[in-house]
Amino acid sequence: MSEDYTPMWKSLGMDLDAHDALLGVLGQGYQEIYLAQKNRPEGMGYFDFVMSEVHGLRIKELLDEKKQNRKIIGSYCVFVPEEIALAGGATLVGLCSGADFAVEEVEKHLPRNTCSLIKSSFGFKLGRVCPYLESADMIVGENTCDGKKKAYETFAGIVDNLYVMDLPQVKSSQGRSLLKAEYERFKIAVEKLTGNKITVESLKEGIKVVNAKRAALHRLATLRKADPAPISGLDALLANQVFFYDNPARFTESVNKICDELEVRIKKNQGVFPSKTPRILISGCPMAVPNWKLPWIIETSGAVIVGEESCVGERGTRNLTEDSGKNLDELMEAITDRYFKVDCAIFTPNQDRSDHIVEMVKAYGADGVIHYGLQFCQPYIMESIPVENKLEKIGIPCMRIETDYGMEDVGQLKTRVEAFIEQISD
Amino acid sequence: MSEDYTPMWKSLGMDLDAHDALLGVLGQGYQEIYLAQKNRPEGMGYFDFVMSEVHGLRIKELLDEKKQNRKIIGSYCVFVPEEIALAGGATLVGLCSGADFAVEEVEKHLPRNTCSLIKSSFGFKLGRVCPYLESADMIVGENTCDGKKKAYETFAGIVDNLYVMDLPQVKSSQGRSLLKAEYERFKIAVEKLTGNKITVESLKEGIKVVNAKRAALHRLATLRKADPAPISGLDALLANQVFFYDNPARFTESVNKICDELEVRIKKNQGVFPSKTPRILISGCPMAVPNWKLPWIIETSGAVIVGEESCVGERGTRNLTEDSGKNLDELMEAITDRYFKVDCAIFTPNQDRSDHIVEMVKAYGADGVIHYGLQFCQPYIMESIPVENKLEKIGIPCMRIETDYGMEDVGQLKTRVEAFIEQISD
Ligand code: SF4
Ligand code: SF4
Ligand code: SF4
Ligand code: SF4
Repeated sequence: MSEDYTPMWKSLGMDLDAHDALLGVLGQGYQEIYLAQKNRPEGMGYFDFVMSEVHGLRIKELLDEKKQNRKIIGSYCVFVPEEIALAGGATLVGLCSGADFAVEEVEKHLPRNTCSLIKSSFGFKLGRVCPYLESADMIVGENTCDGKKKAYETFAGIVDNLYVMDLPQVKSSQGRSLLKAEYERFKIAVEKLTGNKITVESLKEGIKVVNAKRAALHRLATLRKADPAPISGLDALLANQVFFYDNPARFTESVNKICDELEVRIKKNQGVFPSKTPRILISGCPMAVPNWKLPWIIETSGAVIVGEESCVGERGTRNLTEDSGKNLDELMEAITDRYFKVDCAIFTPNQDRSDHIVEMVKAYGADGVIHYGLQFCQPYIMESIPVENKLEKIGIPCMRIETDYGMEDVGQLKTRVEAFIEQISD
Repeated sequence: MSEDYTPMWKSLGMDLDAHDALLGVLGQGYQEIYLAQKNRPEGMGYFDFVMSEVHGLRIKELLDEKKQNRKIIGSYCVFVPEEIALAGGATLVGLCSGADFAVEEVEKHLPRNTCSLIKSSFGFKLGRVCPYLESADMIVGENTCDGKKKAYETFAGIVDNLYVMDLPQVKSSQGRSLLKAEYERFKIAVEKLTGNKITVESLKEGIKVVNAKRAALHRLATLRKADPAPISGLDALLANQVFFYDNPARFTESVNKICDELEVRIKKNQGVFPSKTPRILISGCPMAVPNWKLPWIIETSGAVIVGEESCVGERGTRNLTEDSGKNLDELMEAITDRYFKVDCAIFTPNQDRSDHIVEMVKAYGADGVIHYGLQFCQPYIMESIPVENKLEKIGIPCMRIETDYGMEDVGQLKTRVEAFIEQISD
């Protein structure tokens, strides 16, 4: 990092020793997983910088915004509309929960049989190692899976600024009106937090900014259809992860710059891996920073990842929000329409998701699907069985992996992944 | 059993050999757990008979009803209103899922990390050993926990008559209107199934019948406040289990008869265990027939169970439905009001439940609470941590147990339960 941020972290009440340890692990992981890659696009240098400053410069920017009276809202789920936060003059940051931390302390509050993501979100708070969490003026939870829904009840006693959003479980008209009502309630909460009234203009502007971020990722995704793949899955995942906390305009510009570079690569038939490298679509639970375990295993086992059917990936970013509404209600309807399409496994039934997986396999020319389920994640692990059945019925090989944030199973996973890649290469 | 029911079971398409094996285990378990008890009320003879005929006479009755064109509706959750089924001229039976069956086959459809209850419901179907399931004209699933919600998607491909009811997750006005709308939809589905129009009269009658069953159990519960306890927890649990599939009028009468007997016992200061036996309240996941493991461990370890904070217990039966409504809408509102109070852990927040636990501890003079969580049941196991904290804060000892339907942990559980009873006896 370019500066000594210790005073800043101290001012946030963080545990400096624990935080140093975390940064050490993060830095080493990044070195071994990201910087060790070959043939990376030059534009990834921006993301290397972002990652090296993830708890430094970006936090400084947020604290500067706070000094200008801008509010910071933290969220754990793609159902929290960034459009509304931006329209209210707030900044939305994703609270990534991609590493185990303070496990012993966490298990005083949560059952051992809880998914790593939820445990991690508690660990970062209890261990006081996440400057995003400590900077946030409001933290938004949501009633998605049982695990999160119930964990937020306890989290409400640990943080003092938790706001919980209810969500439907069925895509019925009742379900849609619940989502709309909850977005209206969120809009009011943002206005109250920031003291700013959300207007047609500010909401349109918010929609524009978020759409631009998404469109940049759509462009990136499309370029991954090429063989040889012009960018690794690890790098594309990183872009999808940084999506959640970088400055939106700068992020959009940086991704587009990478896309320009990739277009040149494709013209020259250049790739990160040789042409005909087996192509994998990853599908399942979101992968938050620094959860790079499975993609790293896959891409060091002779395959390339060409898409992520994930909330940190295409499930999260795939639809734009219509911005042609003429008044607030029309714009809020458009936001509701957009988010109501997100095909998270918390919905029942959730046919859209398996259709989308098949669609992605075809679009990105994947040779097989690796379904990634975090241990104890009932929605995704339950859904993975019918997903696998559907894929195999139409001749798309699928492997279901269940894992956590620990490193104990890396050897075993690598053996399984290698066998799968062998199988789909025939 | 009094008759050879083999032809009947055969006509239902059941697997006779597997079913024989199941009945064998059930009979032996009943013998060792129930009939081995001392000082049982004479009235329990009725339940012994019911249990010995659980797949025999009661099924014959249901099939006779079907011959008279009455429909049978199976359900897995106390949110399915029996009042509406009865009003439509249908019989509602609870589909108990209290034993492991066809585990290998089940795990082709469901993840290993699924609670025993859900696995059991699949096992009974896949193994074709449940005559209730095979007799049902309609099976009702509901969007409660993630496990059930997602499992019903698969179940829909295994049975051909599944109806899924949506449920709210929050007790908001939106949540209540969803419940009301879903009950209206269920009413129409029942009318369609039976061909009978539900009227003010039939709905009032349905409410009356179900209230009477509940009132009988309330009476039974109240008598358990006495020390010495006039009935064992095992026997009281059995009454709560039979509640779900017996003929309602006969059930009500039989429970009231037992209550008459218990009143005499109490006057004579007679009990099933000596006075001053440590008193336990069980709280948590429902215990379906023949899941008697934990109560059996407790009551053979020197304590008596004085209440069940469970859906097979007071959570399921505690409120009556107001029957004074003058038209269908008023009655449907009353039904919605009654069920909206059920404090299942799927709701967030769920303060009512922990309040009710404290209330029950006081009402039944419990010395401690044993929280029963089925392994992988996120709602109840998550909630058990704040429940325990709340209880201990006000000086009520609490022990959290996490188990499944297997018998491997009996020795270890017994050791823990004995230590807990020791602790609360001081
Ligand atoms: S997987 Fe579901 S709960 Fe998780 S971030 Fe995505 S939408 Fe939210
Ligand atoms: S990974 Fe699964 S269990 Fe964990 S928070 Fe996401 S949806 Fe919930
Ligand atoms: S515990 Fe909840 S889901 Fe289970 S039967 Fe009771 S109300 Fe239904
Ligand atoms: S015991 Fe828990 S996980 Fe199992 S069906 Fe009931 S609420 Fe769901």
